[in-house]
Amino acid sequence: MTRSPSSAPRPRQGIGQDQFLTILSREEALVRFQAALFPRPVPGEERVLADALGLALAEDVTAPIDVPPFDRSNVDGFAVRSADIVSASEAGSVRLRLNGETIHCGTAPTEAVAAGTATTIATGGPMPRGADAVVMVEHTQPAGDDAIEIRRGASPGQFVSYAGSDIARSEMLLRAGTVIGSREIGMLAACGVASVKVACRPRVAVLSTGDELVQPGYPLPPAAVYDTNGAIVCAAIEENGGEAVFYGAIADDEAKLEAAMREALAASDMLILSGGTSKGAGDVSHRIIARLGKPGIIAHGVALKPGKPLCLAVCDGKPVVILPGFPTSAMFTFHDMIVPVLRRMAGLPPRAETHVATKVPLRVASELGRAEFVMVSLVEGAEGLIAYPTGKGSGAITSFAQADGFLRIDALADHLPAGTEAEVTLFTPHLRVPDLVIIGSHCTGLDLVLEPLARAGLSARSLAVGSLGGLSAARRGECDLAPIHLLDEKTQVYNGPFLTDGLELVPGWRRMQGIVYRPGDKRFEGRSVEDAIAAALADPSCLMVNRNQGAGTRILIDRLLGKARPDGYWNQPRSHNAVAAAVKQNRADWGVTIAPVAQAAGLGFIALAEEHYDFALVSARKDRLAVQAFLEALHSAECRDVLEKAGFRPA
Amino acid sequence: MTRSPSSAPRPRQGIGQDQFLTILSREEALVRFQAALFPRPVPGEERVLADALGLALAEDVTAPIDVPPFDRSNVDGFAVRSADIVSASEAGSVRLRLNGETIHCGTAPTEAVAAGTATTIATGGPMPRGADAVVMVEHTQPAGDDAIEIRRGASPGQFVSYAGSDIARSEMLLRAGTVIGSREIGMLAACGVASVKVACRPRVAVLSTGDELVQPGYPLPPAAVYDTNGAIVCAAIEENGGEAVFYGAIADDEAKLEAAMREALAASDMLILSGGTSKGAGDVSHRIIARLGKPGIIAHGVALKPGKPLCLAVCDGKPVVILPGFPTSAMFTFHDMIVPVLRRMAGLPPRAETHVATKVPLRVASELGRAEFVMVSLVEGAEGLIAYPTGKGSGAITSFAQADGFLRIDALADHLPAGTEAEVTLFTPHLRVPDLVIIGSHCTGLDLVLEPLARAGLSARSLAVGSLGGLSAARRGECDLAPIHLLDEKTQVYNGPFLTDGLELVPGWRRMQGIVYRPGDKRFEGRSVEDAIAAALADPSCLMVNRNQGAGTRILIDRLLGKARPDGYWNQPRSHNAVAAAVKQNRADWGVTIAPVAQAAGLGFIALAEEHYDFALVSARKDRLAVQAFLEALHSAECRDVLEKAGFRPA
Repeated sequence: MTRSPSSAPRPRQGIGQDQFLTILSREEALVRFQAALFPRPVPGEERVLADALGLALAEDVTAPIDVPPFDRSNVDGFAVRSADIVSASEAGSVRLRLNGETIHCGTAPTEAVAAGTATTIATGGPMPRGADAVVMVEHTQPAGDDAIEIRRGASPGQFVSYAGSDIARSEMLLRAGTVIGSREIGMLAACGVASVKVACRPRVAVLSTGDELVQPGYPLPPAAVYDTNGAIVCAAIEENGGEAVFYGAIADDEAKLEAAMREALAASDMLILSGGTSKGAGDVSHRIIARLGKPGIIAHGVALKPGKPLCLAVCDGKPVVILPGFPTSAMFTFHDMIVPVLRRMAGLPPRAETHVATKVPLRVASELGRAEFVMVSLVEGAEGLIAYPTGKGSGAITSFAQADGFLRIDALADHLPAGTEAEVTLFTPHLRVPDLVIIGSHCTGLDLVLEPLARAGLSARSLAVGSLGGLSAARRGECDLAPIHLLDEKTQVYNGPFLTDGLELVPGWRRMQGIVYRPGDKRFEGRSVEDAIAAALADPSCLMVNRNQGAGTRILIDRLLGKARPDGYWNQPRSHNAVAAAVKQNRADWGVTIAPVAQAAGLGFIALAEEHYDFALVSARKDRLAVQAFLEALHSAECRDVLEKAGFRPA
Repeated sequence: MTRSPSSAPRPRQGIGQDQFLTILSREEALVRFQAALFPRPVPGEERVLADALGLALAEDVTAPIDVPPFDRSNVDGFAVRSADIVSASEAGSVRLRLNGETIHCGTAPTEAVAAGTATTIATGGPMPRGADAVVMVEHTQPAGDDAIEIRRGASPGQFVSYAGSDIARSEMLLRAGTVIGSREIGMLAACGVASVKVACRPRVAVLSTGDELVQPGYPLPPAAVYDTNGAIVCAAIEENGGEAVFYGAIADDEAKLEAAMREALAASDMLILSGGTSKGAGDVSHRIIARLGKPGIIAHGVALKPGKPLCLAVCDGKPVVILPGFPTSAMFTFHDMIVPVLRRMAGLPPRAETHVATKVPLRVASELGRAEFVMVSLVEGAEGLIAYPTGKGSGAITSFAQADGFLRIDALADHLPAGTEAEVTLFTPHLRVPDLVIIGSHCTGLDLVLEPLARAGLSARSLAVGSLGGLSAARRGECDLAPIHLLDEKTQVYNGPFLTDGLELVPGWRRMQGIVYRPGDKRFEGRSVEDAIAAALADPSCLMVNRNQGAGTRILIDRLLGKARPDGYWNQPRSHNAVAAAVKQNRADWGVTIAPVAQAAGLGFIALAEEHYDFALVSARKDRLAVQAFLEALHSAECRDVLEKAGFRPA
């Protein structure tokens, strides 16, 4: 028995967990962290305009010149003295003698416009001395080679833009902290400013920790996982004004980790550690931080969900952060607690936040005693926005990556009742309501049907909440379609018996369900269903993998087993893919899944029965453009072909 | 008399303007332009994740693996068979023997969990064969070295995340066209995807045309202006998925321009010409485009304001565009007509647009017969958003750069009545309502008072609409403060007499007005006011510059002149800066402006009288945080110091 003292859990004698003794509220942790870091100067560097795009100004810029720099003609025509043509009319024209020069753009006038004269001037040309208005060329008639006739008067200043009327010299052009976009570049260029002092992007070192981490692109050994946090944290740093430097994943070795942390921190303005899901791994990093500089750890453990294990430290003026290991915990705490600090170091204003009013259709459980943030997907309901908790937990990257925003449950509430009206903070300022909303059971076949819609620019959102959840959403009018595969045990008919008023059945496709096993397993290979089940039940070392209560496949499995409850019966994952993975990885010897999944996993397959994957269509939304496009795609010959190739049988 | 036949305007015999004969509606122009360009393949290139940030996926990505790749423990604890601990309770614990191995993150289990046993497992560790739930370490007691006691049951699947529950193998991960942000990078990394095929950014050549253009950073000769459009178009290209290559400003020489256009187009996917405000300059570019490739010009002249002179062409498959010369015309047409094409070439989805409901407080004139887009600034009124037309015209860069968005006036309307409710399209998806709104007369002294607010993170918006416009806005409750400098002729008292119910006077500062002249001008230098005016009026070659009707300074000038109407009287610019520029540039010999402006321009100054620059405060908004911060700043000793140094006298 090999147990590492540092990184494996051990039973505890009491309930006290020393590393969380100093747990702080989210607000208190943020205040202490910022107090230890600010104020501090924001270092700046001079950049030419083209290289300053997207960066923040380090100092105020005032206008060095007037724009336009002179009184400018806005049309092609003639610079005149308005008093000269007061009497001009259709009945009686006024004749003005043309001065010898023509004022092009860029030509400095040399002659004054004396009474009774006019000077030819192009759009953008500077007004000559004496003139106070411009007459458009279209409103004049030539009168010989050196004169014009004018038949209408002009008010003083007509078609003239005065010096400084766009931007006045000395006025505040842009404030420090302004992010330079194309519009700011336009204002700077108009004043002749070629370079500006921008805030330097803080250099942020990112280190992943954990023996189990493999970098993307490399093969994945058993029990290993890809390093997700390293890449996502680096990208989020870049999105929030920092320059990320990734130091790779470091194994759980205290000496190696300390060397890497010291090297990374010395070369950077901030250090972020991610990974270290297990408490042991965290302990190592904390010990090292205590040696890196003063004051050290500011907060270890924050009353925040997701994100409780967050550790905030300041070592000799530089922030050092250990993010929680779970991706959604890591990203949420990064955005909530680290981005404000990073933006301030980068000379950026606080991130603008957009809030929207929503209704939460389901009861959401919460833990008493700490603020809980629930990631949600938004769809347009009949009476406004509906917020669906993404629901895969903080261990899932998609809980964060596919959420539109989050809502907060107060520390004093233990749940949010169904139907609660909640304010959602968006992750991006812009909410794109999808053209088509599908809520129910997901199937990879659905991706194939949605392909032509995506090509046509129609966006679809598919929320996987299972067949029954989809039906409820459809009844509440929260989606266009609910994909379902529910077998009515009484009638032995799929889907139809579950539809209520306002819903109609759109046949989808059939998915063959069957027993999967590892190729070569003689208990299954070449056998009939009955033989295979008999062989499995006869072998006490033969382990099954079941499905969750409520799954259509579970009904089939229970029928196969009768009263038998073989080993593995209580292993009840919630998806076809998890069943295939369990068998593939030798954690179980057989289970029931669908043919395309078995095929993708390279497993043996004994066909059992077809499952009907159909759609409950909300009748009231049938005429919507995207719904019609979906139905057209579903019924097209191309789509049927593609589905068949992937192992489905269109209805 | 030197007139260039190509670039100077000449009087016309008729009203026909041949280059606008083929004028198209905005919609028709866009349809024809896109039809000549699309469909076309979007070239792609493979990029590692870190270098793909901000780019668009060139093809769909499906998940190559399940995430998590195995059934994973979500806590530190013990992998068990839930059936073994069904009877566990506080009253009667269940004892499980510990298996020999410890499953760390990254450790592949080797022993099965048989009935009556448990295996130590860390957060993130893969579930061993036989186990179907995890018990948290906190809920166990050690029972000797190789066993634990458990006092509560576990449901099957407790603390387990099943393989594929986050991302299922074969499911659609990201669609082509998705812009890769940190969240997308997280999903790709979680699946082990290290590189993706992204759409290549189209290379867009930008050429400025015009003899008068000087690049920022170089000194500005008389009559020249800085090239604004070159820089802003390049930046806007980068913001919309393109790679801008700036070829500089080319003088108006047909041979040189053609050579430059051919070189730029050969090396790029698109060519954009900007500048060429005069019609003559445009003609040259059009002649060249006709020689560059088929089909050539698609639309020359679009029924669009601003933007009528826009020219759209396609030369051998590549878009060639001549933007209007005025900056706001150029930027508006770029965003409205060119961005959709650029984004499509870059494999990006159409830009998301946000609309807000607003009320327009003023009458807005419009031209019959073409769609007109009015740039607006938004402020929060008592009953919702108020849209103020930026009002400086399409020749001004600030009309575009300082606008929040635009509203559309139909081609069939000749104006928008005051109080119209209008939908505004925002330029950026996010609307930031300013903390403090100031509408009225602008003064550079105001920038100094706002400085401490900016440092404290309070945003202020100052709209320069003149004193009377500011008073009206304050009466309608559209601003917090209206800066005014209005002299009541009857009482000879500034500002106070103009205040109505609901407004209160906050004293600001005094600005010394005086006569400005070029240093060394013996008609003014060393003289008293009376002597100087007498000398100016005695010299018929001495030219004045006046101010507009309604300006406080105009009243002072009229008093100085009595009944005299010297040359230049009708030259009536609208700002202190324009007066100084006219005198500085020898377009006039004297005028009246304020001391700080005279000082900045390096002009001689004869003091006349102080102007009172005060604030009309909307009483109902007095208690707002930003208003209090403003009043505090205004009354601070630091602020008074700074104002005095800049030439103002605090009240």
